[in-house]
Amino acid sequence: MKLYDATLAPNPRRVRIFLAEKGLSVPLEAVDMRAGINRQPEFLVKNPMGALPVLELDDGSCISESLVICEYFEDLHPEPALIGRTPEERALTRMWERRMELEVMGPLLTAFRHGSSFFKGRIAQVPEMVAPSRAAAAKRLAWVDGLLAERQFIAGDRYSIADITLFCGVDFGGRVGEGYDAGLKNLTRWHEAMKARPSAAA
Amino acid sequence: MKLYDATLAPNPRRVRIFLAEKGLSVPLEAVDMRAGINRQPEFLVKNPMGALPVLELDDGSCISESLVICEYFEDLHPEPALIGRTPEERALTRMWERRMELEVMGPLLTAFRHGSSFFKGRIAQVPEMVAPSRAAAAKRLAWVDGLLAERQFIAGDRYSIADITLFCGVDFGGRVGEGYDAGLKNLTRWHEAMKARPSAAA
Repeated sequence: MKLYDATLAPNPRRVRIFLAEKGLSVPLEAVDMRAGINRQPEFLVKNPMGALPVLELDDGSCISESLVICEYFEDLHPEPALIGRTPEERALTRMWERRMELEVMGPLLTAFRHGSSFFKGRIAQVPEMVAPSRAAAAKRLAWVDGLLAERQFIAGDRYSIADITLFCGVDFGGRVGEGYDAGLKNLTRWHEAMKARPSAAA
Repeated sequence: MKLYDATLAPNPRRVRIFLAEKGLSVPLEAVDMRAGINRQPEFLVKNPMGALPVLELDDGSCISESLVICEYFEDLHPEPALIGRTPEERALTRMWERRMELEVMGPLLTAFRHGSSFFKGRIAQVPEMVAPSRAAAAKRLAWVDGLLAERQFIAGDRYSIADITLFCGVDFGGRVGEGYDAGLKNLTRWHEAMKARPSAAA
């Protein structure tokens, strides 16, 4: 088993943190996204989407999509549960994870993709998307800040994959000029707590 | 248990078809999206995102996100498996489902959202997004057409949730002016096979 990885990108980090929280270790192989290695034919055989991370199993089959890789490790190693122990717990965690991914990080990453020089020539950039996407992300982050006034973690009273998704997103956003409003005190408190976990070094 | 539903929208239909394929029946309650009932405070308590479907459990807790609701029913009623019976099978199905949702239907629905009069005033429309999103969807659908030259279903040799996601997406696309190229013969053959399943009436 091997995980094709990219150090700075938010998605591979989601899997690395998930593994660290599980106490699992998987060999990593770095793929140079800046050099476009992930768009080369050799890599596209592993993931036609050209995205990272990709988990290669011992039989050579490849699993891509960060969330799917995390679900696979939860399946193989249920404890500590980062998704859930019962159907209801899994459903609620997955719901919160998806909200963080699609409703919060979605617009933040859309703003980045359409505004960043990194994506110039890599995607069809539409500069008009930047401002409304930033506004949408800011609105959602303010909503999350409100939620965190009354709970310790995103999905409630236990750390979960929903925290990992949002943490990797806001940490990445901060590094690429898409940071959140410092006035969001609950989000800031939660973010500091996430940074203080040993898995944050993954 | 009750499913808040909207007949014409693609996401609630994903869950209805999933239930039909499982042979399950859940009471439905229609929510009028045209009248904006899903944006009213009473509904936002059930799902702050204002989206449908939402599954309300008997204890009053609410699960939103179509995919999460489907995973919940697979958890409760594993057979017939529409996600998978082993960790590897589940991982591969989830990977294909996500590709269909995010890489294929994502740009198609982005084109619709930014170009349709239905979303005028509902979202910050960016007309410049329509053409590149349509082009991205067309490119991905041509890729899927190529895959279907060598397999019967999206995830391989068995019907799965990945077929349901793409089917609901292309069917909806066809109804709202975002249909696919009739020259995609394999996609067309697959689409006809999906329409012929009894669950398509759900």
